[in-house]
Amino acid sequence: MIASQRTPATGVLKVSAQSSPNSVAGALAGVLRERPAAELQAIGAGATNQAVKAIAIARTYLQAAEMDLVCIPEFTDVEIDGKERTAMRLLIERRPLSSSRAERECA
Amino acid sequence: MIASQRTPATGVLKVSAQSSPNSVAGALAGVLRERPAAELQAIGAGATNQAVKAIAIARTYLQAAEMDLVCIPEFTDVEIDGKERTAMRLLIERRPLSSSRAERECA
Repeated sequence: MIASQRTPATGVLKVSAQSSPNSVAGALAGVLRERPAAELQAIGAGATNQAVKAIAIARTYLQAAEMDLVCIPEFTDVEIDGKERTAMRLLIERRPLSSSRAERECA
Repeated sequence: MIASQRTPATGVLKVSAQSSPNSVAGALAGVLRERPAAELQAIGAGATNQAVKAIAIARTYLQAAEMDLVCIPEFTDVEIDGKERTAMRLLIERRPLSSSRAERECA
């Protein structure tokens, strides 16, 4: 595993299988309008799926501000009720929409 | 939705809920050692979860080559057995490991 040395200045957005992707997307886009990076945390397949949907939706929310994002997934261990669980940590970095377009045209 | 104009030169790696994350990670890392971009496609929560795990694992495989990756999720419509389904398309871009480290130290 790649150890992350990053301690985000923003809080971690915790996503569950019951989270609304649109709501998480709104919160994520809100953070990324103000800061260069954000972080989502999800435990389990349902939660990870909602998190990825939220990230895809947040991209459309950021488009109007000429922003896009990239996502960097990694495993992390978290303690819940005294038991260790493996969570998915999704680091999100903001980038200009123009850089995404340029890279796709070159790919 | 953000329309992707990119037609990857590589094939799309299709991931199912039964896919082994380690196997997908090996295939993904193999593509990214040769090319700047790759693409995963997943339908459903189980498949998306395996895809995200594979991406996290591929990062560790690429570390030895001083490479890292970022992931850009988007929705896409695919036709399966004559029915339209919404799939998650995960565009993967290779980047130097050093750029990941620098951005984390700044974040």
